[in-house]
Order: sequence, then C-alpha cells, then structure tokens
Amino acid sequence: MASAPVSSAAPQLSTTAPAGHSVVPIDLGERSYDILIGDGLLKAESFAGLPRSAKALIVTNTTVGPLYTAQLRAAIAPLHQQVLDVELPDGEQYKDWPALNQVFTKLLEEAADRKTVLYALGGGVVGDMTGFAAACYMRGVPFVQVPTTLLAQVDSSVGGKTAINHPAGKNMIGAFYQPLRVVCDIDTLDTLPQRELLAGLAEVIKYGPIADAEFLSWLETNLDLLLARDRAALRHAIQRSCEIKAWVVGQDEKESGLRAILNYGHTFGHAIEAGMGYGAWLHGEAVGCGMVMAADLSARLGLIDEATSQRIRALVERTGLPVQGPDLGADRYIELMQVDKKAEGGEIRFVVVGPLGQAGMRGAPDAMVRDVIAANVR
Amino acid sequence: MASAPVSSAAPQLSTTAPAGHSVVPIDLGERSYDILIGDGLLKAESFAGLPRSAKALIVTNTTVGPLYTAQLRAAIAPLHQQVLDVELPDGEQYKDWPALNQVFTKLLEEAADRKTVLYALGGGVVGDMTGFAAACYMRGVPFVQVPTTLLAQVDSSVGGKTAINHPAGKNMIGAFYQPLRVVCDIDTLDTLPQRELLAGLAEVIKYGPIADAEFLSWLETNLDLLLARDRAALRHAIQRSCEIKAWVVGQDEKESGLRAILNYGHTFGHAIEAGMGYGAWLHGEAVGCGMVMAADLSARLGLIDEATSQRIRALVERTGLPVQGPDLGADRYIELMQVDKKAEGGEIRFVVVGPLGQAGMRGAPDAMVRDVIAANVR
Repeated sequence: MASAPVSSAAPQLSTTAPAGHSVVPIDLGERSYDILIGDGLLKAESFAGLPRSAKALIVTNTTVGPLYTAQLRAAIAPLHQQVLDVELPDGEQYKDWPALNQVFTKLLEEAADRKTVLYALGGGVVGDMTGFAAACYMRGVPFVQVPTTLLAQVDSSVGGKTAINHPAGKNMIGAFYQPLRVVCDIDTLDTLPQRELLAGLAEVIKYGPIADAEFLSWLETNLDLLLARDRAALRHAIQRSCEIKAWVVGQDEKESGLRAILNYGHTFGHAIEAGMGYGAWLHGEAVGCGMVMAADLSARLGLIDEATSQRIRALVERTGLPVQGPDLGADRYIELMQVDKKAEGGEIRFVVVGPLGQAGMRGAPDAMVRDVIAANVR
Repeated sequence: MASAPVSSAAPQLSTTAPAGHSVVPIDLGERSYDILIGDGLLKAESFAGLPRSAKALIVTNTTVGPLYTAQLRAAIAPLHQQVLDVELPDGEQYKDWPALNQVFTKLLEEAADRKTVLYALGGGVVGDMTGFAAACYMRGVPFVQVPTTLLAQVDSSVGGKTAINHPAGKNMIGAFYQPLRVVCDIDTLDTLPQRELLAGLAEVIKYGPIADAEFLSWLETNLDLLLARDRAALRHAIQRSCEIKAWVVGQDEKESGLRAILNYGHTFGHAIEAGMGYGAWLHGEAVGCGMVMAADLSARLGLIDEATSQRIRALVERTGLPVQGPDLGADRYIELMQVDKKAEGGEIRFVVVGPLGQAGMRGAPDAMVRDVIAANVR
C-alpha cells in the first residue's frame, strides 16, 4: 500500500456464551462500554447497572415506536421515575435540524435536567440523531443505543459517531460522543423490511475486504442463511462485525487515521446518496454500490487483482444490492466527493483494499476515478 | 457552607512582563491553551505557532466585522492560503440555529475541510456560536477566540463552554469544546459601547465575591479608572479575571462541581433574560442584577452578613448596572430557574457566597427565594 494507515489482522472471534448473549467490549479508556448481542434483550437485565435518573427519554421514529417503545419502556422502568418518548418522522430525509430540535423541545418542555438519559430506539438515523442530541443537550447528557436495524447493530450504533445532515452534505454536523451501552436485540430484526436487511448486509460485507478475508469467505458460504434471517448466522455476522469495528475504533476513536477504513465504499456511496437526494437510495444500498466502485479503483491501482474485485462485486450482487450507480455524470460525482469529510484541501481520499483483508487511504488520478465511474454507472 | 463545592483561595496574580502582553495558561492536559492579554495584539506574532491550513474562516458580526476583520485577516494571513469570513447578525436574539447554520453553509459552500481553522471575532455571542460551530462541523475542527468585548475577554471566551439558545432556554444546546488560543486585544475595547463595557464589568465583579475578596476591594478602589477605560486598570482586571477563571476551569472542565460557582448571579440572571426575551437585557446586566439577588439569598441563608450583601449591591450599583429585576412574578422566576441547567430533578441550585471570596452551591426554601425576588424587583 502506498499510504498509511493500513489495517492489519483483526482479532479472533471471541467465544460466545452458549446460552444468553454475547458481549463485545469497546475499549476507549473512561469512555469504554459494552455491546450486548442476543435474542430477547429488551428486558431489564440488559440495562442493569446503567445510571438511575428522574427522567429518561426514548427517542424513536413513527415506524419503530409502535413496535418496541412499550417493551423498552418496561425494561428501563426500574431505572427512572418517568420515561418519556418522542417519535421522529422515519427516514434519512428527516435526519436534519427540525427533527433534532423536536428532541430538544421535548426535553425542555419536560424540564429534563442534565442527568436525563436518552435511549435511541431505531435504526441509524435515530441513533445518530439521538447521540447528537445527547452530545448537545445542556452540553452533554448520557445515552444508550438500542439499534433495531441490522445496519445500526453492525455499524452506526457502535463507535460514537453522531450527526445530522446539512442540505449540502451528509453527516456534516455532528460530534464524537460515546453511548453508555449498545443493546442489540436480534429479535427486533424480525420486523425489518427485507430491503433494509439487505442494506444492513452491505455494512456487514464491508468488514471482510477491509479487515478479515476469512469473514468474507464465511459470508460467501452463509449468505443464503443470512438472507433467510437464520438466527445463528445473523448473530455471528453481527458479533464479528462489532468485534472488527470495536478493534478499529479502539485504536482511533476520532478518525485521525485507521478508523477511516470503516468508510470503505462510503466516498462513492455518499456521492450517490447526495446526488439522488437523501432517502432515494438507502445508505446501505449506496455503500454496497460504493464498495464495488472502490474495489474497481483498488484493482486499477494494482492493489488487488481483477478477480478479487469481481469477487466483492459478486457478493454485493448476490445480496441483492445495486452494483451500478446512477449516472450523475463524472463531474457531479467528483464535486460531491470533494465535499466529503475525508477530502483534504480538495483532494479526494479513497478507502482502498489490498491485499484482501487490509485497507488504506489514498488519492487517485482524476482520469482513473472517471474511468471507475464510467464503468460502474448505468 | 452547607454543601460542596466550595472555592478556596485563588492563585496569586502572576507577574506581568513590563512591555508586551500577559499570558494566562489554562491547564487542561492535552487541551491546554494560553490566553494572551495586551494592547495591539491583532498582529501575526499573536497567532504564531497555530496550525496552518488551506482555509480559515473568521466568524464575526455586522458590528465588529467592519471594524476588525481586515486587521485579523492580515494577522493570520501567514497561516492560511485563503481566509474567508462570515458576518452574523449582532445580538443575543440571533444566538440561534439559523445564524449557526449560516456558518455551516458558508463552510460547505467553500468546501472547507476538517483542517479548516475557525476564528471567533466578536463578543460572547460570536464566541459561543463559533465554538459550537467548530465543535460540530465535520465532528470537530480547531478554533481560536479573538474576543472584542470585555465580557468575552474575562469570561465567555475562556473555558470552552459553547452553545446556542433554544426558545425555551438559554445556552441549552452546546458543547464543551476548547479553543487553541484566546487573544484578548485591549485596543478592541475602544470601540465598545459604554453599556457593554458595564455589562462586562458585571462578570469582572463576579470573581471577587466567589474567589478573591482582595480583588473585590481592588475593584471598589479602581472602579472609576475602569469606567474611564484606563488601560492599566483594564489589563489588571482582565488578567485577574482570567487567572481566576483558569484556576476554576482547570479543576473542573465540564462543570461537574466547582466550575458551577462561575455561574454566580446567573440563575436569577437567566430568568431575567428569558423572562424579558433574549436581547432586552444584556447578559451582563442580568448577571449584575442576579448577583445582587444571590447575595441577598446568601445573607438570608446566614452565609454572609447583611453588610457584605449591601457591599456587593453597592458596587454593582456604582458600576451603573441594574440592581432591581423586572417584576415577572415570583412564579415565573421560579419556573424559569427550574429549566436552568443547574437545576436537578426540579430543585433549583443557587450559587451562594460565604464567607466573602468563597462560593458554593445549594438549594433554598421556596419561601425564601420568593422573599428574595419580592425584595429585589420593581
């Protein structure tokens, strides 16, 4: 690889307690916390040891709220005198200031103090917004992630990246702010639409090329089980994804180096999302397609061979995710990628793979980027 | 004092270099920085050693911008290839999301990356908003405080508290985010309206009762010089204020204890500001009046004698600041104070003084609070 940082071998899979849930620790000094992964975790035991407070606020959306708010409310009732909730509109297009402000308004109307605990119940949008609300309300209150989508369980709820979108860029306004705990109840995936399950699998697949070639092989072998929502397969996939993410985030909490590899597929993906208007493509769909483009770029840069690039493309395609981007025009792709947070001084920095199971960041010649775009849009 | 935390003796005044500027260090580990205080500091030397970057953004307002942007731009030109600026509307009533979003929009329009340095050029509102914008833009970019009001130089630019207001509460949305440096150019006070000078003196006076009885005596002796903008007197007052603030913030960056004493006068003061509508009273005017009320409360609680309470009142009055609050009704005062960030579980926590030069936090009987309000409004 031409440029640092390069990931090296991720840690081995930890042993799963035979009955019960798995625990993946995130080691961030005084901001360390655990990810709990298992079935039936929306119960009091999963929240034991978290801070008690007069008030708590469950932040959810109009889709997830009716399904799980009552269960979560019962689970955290032992910790709080009053459990409030607020339902935000559902969708990436509402990951914005007006929706965020609904949380602040609710907290202030209820005279919620600095010890109030926020619970994020939902997918990535709810998690990112709740985390950012917690980071900002009275300059910081504690929060807990209860992700109910595969994407949130394997990626967005872990690691403390919180944000809202700006019309000119995705996740441009946010904070690094760690939760006190992440509770991933696999049962909540039962109600997840298939399209969102597939979008979540894009972020699962991501961990193979960037950190664990064996996991990529495991995914190729077990994809049908995952698509059929086999509990054991899902649990393994979630746990391994969280372990790799924990290992990366533990080394680089604030994305000054290694952590950027988690954005594999995201530079092209963000351009697709922004270019189509937030919400048209699901984030995971854009990332899936973005990984195909980034694999192609890696091959053109000579970091992996063409067969490996095709292998990544084939897995994304078998998953049912788009492998061709919208034809926005190369200029527009490049313009949108230059606004990405990973750009520096206008130079676009791509997460590239090579050899398989390792990743790094680097720029690429403009002509090559245009070739990648031309070859992967329709 | 009945309850912790209680401040004890603040450090001695440090020696001022005979010619040149004073430096007050803020000790916060890897977030440590210096406050520079002196005349003629809007020059390159004051910014030496700060990070170089392709872009920088000066955030100022429509009043201060025309006076000092050109000077600051020249001073930081050696560090940046391009220095942008954005002028926000002037006033506490614009310390809100739409104004903050102007900063984000400007940064995104200019494709400003994560290394972009923000410079806050103005008073407390500009400083708080710029700091919060820096905390949130791409999850955090560096920023420098260049306060041009007395209030900002002695209080708001130091210590990393950043925020915007919400219609339901002042400074309710924000972050603890430290600047890289604070440059206090006393020359910029030449253009400060007298009403704002007086408002700034409220925050200067504050440091006496809570931390340094000798400084209170010095203020009583030198008030006329300060009101006449005597350079040496101003420099001493700013330096001593910053030293005391640095000492407090260095012990309690995130206001879990001691730091709350810096809010002396602010609980009543916030109620006045919110009750009258932000902008009707200057923050320092509300704090001045709030200190009189908090001193009265401290006397009623038996923590200081009535003469000491009157001494604080007399200094506030001689400064030309209001010593009687608006008659909002006791219920409204209490309602507004319960939303204050220092309230916990609905109980209002007041910063009280006693003995003179030390402060602590405690609740007070409802009837006593009502007596204080009744005795100090008109």
